[in-house]
Amino acid sequence: MIVPGSTIGILGGGQLGQMLAVSAAQLGYRVHIFAPDEAGGEGLPAANVAAAVTRAAYDDTAALNSFAAQVDVVTFEFENVPVAAARRLAAHVPVRPGARAFEVAQDRLAEKVFATAHGGRTAPHHAVHDLAGLRASLDELGYPAILKTRRMGYDGKGQARIGEPQDAAAAWDAIGQAPAILEGVVAFSAEFSVLLARGVNGASLVYEAPRNEHREGILRRSVVPSGLAASQLDAAAALARRIADALDYVGLLAVEFFATKHGPVFNEMAPRVHNSGHWTIEGADTSQFENHIRAVCGLPLGSAASHGRAEMLNLIGDDVDTWPDLLADPTARPHLYGKRETRPGRKMGHVTRITS
Amino acid sequence: MIVPGSTIGILGGGQLGQMLAVSAAQLGYRVHIFAPDEAGGEGLPAANVAAAVTRAAYDDTAALNSFAAQVDVVTFEFENVPVAAARRLAAHVPVRPGARAFEVAQDRLAEKVFATAHGGRTAPHHAVHDLAGLRASLDELGYPAILKTRRMGYDGKGQARIGEPQDAAAAWDAIGQAPAILEGVVAFSAEFSVLLARGVNGASLVYEAPRNEHREGILRRSVVPSGLAASQLDAAAALARRIADALDYVGLLAVEFFATKHGPVFNEMAPRVHNSGHWTIEGADTSQFENHIRAVCGLPLGSAASHGRAEMLNLIGDDVDTWPDLLADPTARPHLYGKRETRPGRKMGHVTRITS
Repeated sequence: MIVPGSTIGILGGGQLGQMLAVSAAQLGYRVHIFAPDEAGGEGLPAANVAAAVTRAAYDDTAALNSFAAQVDVVTFEFENVPVAAARRLAAHVPVRPGARAFEVAQDRLAEKVFATAHGGRTAPHHAVHDLAGLRASLDELGYPAILKTRRMGYDGKGQARIGEPQDAAAAWDAIGQAPAILEGVVAFSAEFSVLLARGVNGASLVYEAPRNEHREGILRRSVVPSGLAASQLDAAAALARRIADALDYVGLLAVEFFATKHGPVFNEMAPRVHNSGHWTIEGADTSQFENHIRAVCGLPLGSAASHGRAEMLNLIGDDVDTWPDLLADPTARPHLYGKRETRPGRKMGHVTRITS
Repeated sequence: MIVPGSTIGILGGGQLGQMLAVSAAQLGYRVHIFAPDEAGGEGLPAANVAAAVTRAAYDDTAALNSFAAQVDVVTFEFENVPVAAARRLAAHVPVRPGARAFEVAQDRLAEKVFATAHGGRTAPHHAVHDLAGLRASLDELGYPAILKTRRMGYDGKGQARIGEPQDAAAAWDAIGQAPAILEGVVAFSAEFSVLLARGVNGASLVYEAPRNEHREGILRRSVVPSGLAASQLDAAAALARRIADALDYVGLLAVEFFATKHGPVFNEMAPRVHNSGHWTIEGADTSQFENHIRAVCGLPLGSAASHGRAEMLNLIGDDVDTWPDLLADPTARPHLYGKRETRPGRKMGHVTRITS
């Protein structure tokens, strides 16, 4: 057990790290953030609530070794950390979740293969290596289809929709001709996510699954309860649990699904706390952030019971200009991330409303 | 208005500062802590969640000037900051609450005079300057009585109970022969506190008043609802509001009362967030910490509505050894302050339970 008073190392310095650091502080832990210098030098959200900060690249061996010597356990707020960094740290200090979870989750093909191997259903998909292969796959999967880079994709980045045959070459160029996956379209009634916390001892729990709405590929809104059938949610939770057990996962795991008339379809997973779980700060007995900290420190997990109905809205880009209204709204619980530069598509904050 | 992204300076580095810093971060502010080096060098709880820290004495003029130049507003987590420091800072930057609140609250005689002037009732009391005066006051107020230093008293420090005439000299020595106040005993049915937040625009609100229980002079337990009569609570809230208005107070003001059959008796006030308000983190729409930050930044106050029944227990000294049990208890919301050395009487953490 990593006892309170110890230091938790976190790779990544964004708002997820900030919210993790706050939960860590409330349990008496110090947090040490490891993250590269950010563009524009505006300051990392997580660095504002950390006891220590290392600014270095994720492949800086000397910095990683020094960091490992200063912390008692390592975790992540960023899913695209190089697996080599996780492995290097693991030689010195517990790393939770482990490198295997990143290997699987960082590759859109690998995560689908993994989910399928554990009994999940996915969208029809083909690996794509070149334009000829893309055309062949389109012939098989039909239109429309979505071409996605296998690696480094999030918030709709690295994706291109292909509506008809003549879009193929442009889509291939748009994603940078990188190793890719072509996905057929899934007819779904809703998107939802399973937020699962799993402890060092293998005990796990799931939060009430939020229904998620996206806008331009970015999560816009999450709501609990989702209103989806228990059979749909239970099957998804069972798959998430099988995945977590197979990875011997420790921490908070987010798995995104499509709800279809044939049951849940696995979309993707993130080996970290997740934007669709921000409502748990006010809306559950123990937030996803606190349960992630509890898990990585080997503490018992806290109750994930939710408090009535919760709605979380992201403040994306100019949405953040509504902050004075949100602060004046007694039903709103606003969270701002302290980012100075507003950019289109940038997550600037979120607001949660709880109604019972 | 001090807009999100700005830097809030906080004088003091303890757990109250830590909880203020967490609320500030959630609204997008940076926090700069100013505090002297602590005994034992074990680290300040607030420094673990601050963007910047100045370690200097409260009378270090150069450090105060430099701090003032780096922050957009100044507030406090510690009530015994020298008034001169508050005045010096106020020459450069808004200081909220203002120095006048500290002048009044730092002196047990001055705060009673102030409360009385605004229609409050207090325990019978006399100022004491020497042993002869103490004996004369005892003749008038009777036994038992409590001798308290006028300044720098908190958590039962600087106090001596006088049960009979022959205790007088020892009590006078025990409090260091410092300027003092002798208080007669008040027959009360309960202790409670009013937690009032007041904004820059003069709007104010009060939380549901907690009933407080002390042990060896230190707050042990706070519970809402208090079960006290509305007439008792309303009169106390009205006095707190008159005091806050008279001081043009900005921030969270705590006023402690005795509930008596003749109505509330003012005991003392603290110009800061208060231990008896820790339950508001989970038990109210907006915590006392967030409303203090909102107030000092000129933002609208958030709803203070409470969620059912709340009980807050302090973890004092060895109490903290129960933390594994608290973490395993699904009804408990534990908070640990990350203090390394456990000492008798030291506040190591607290735990809140909410039941609806």
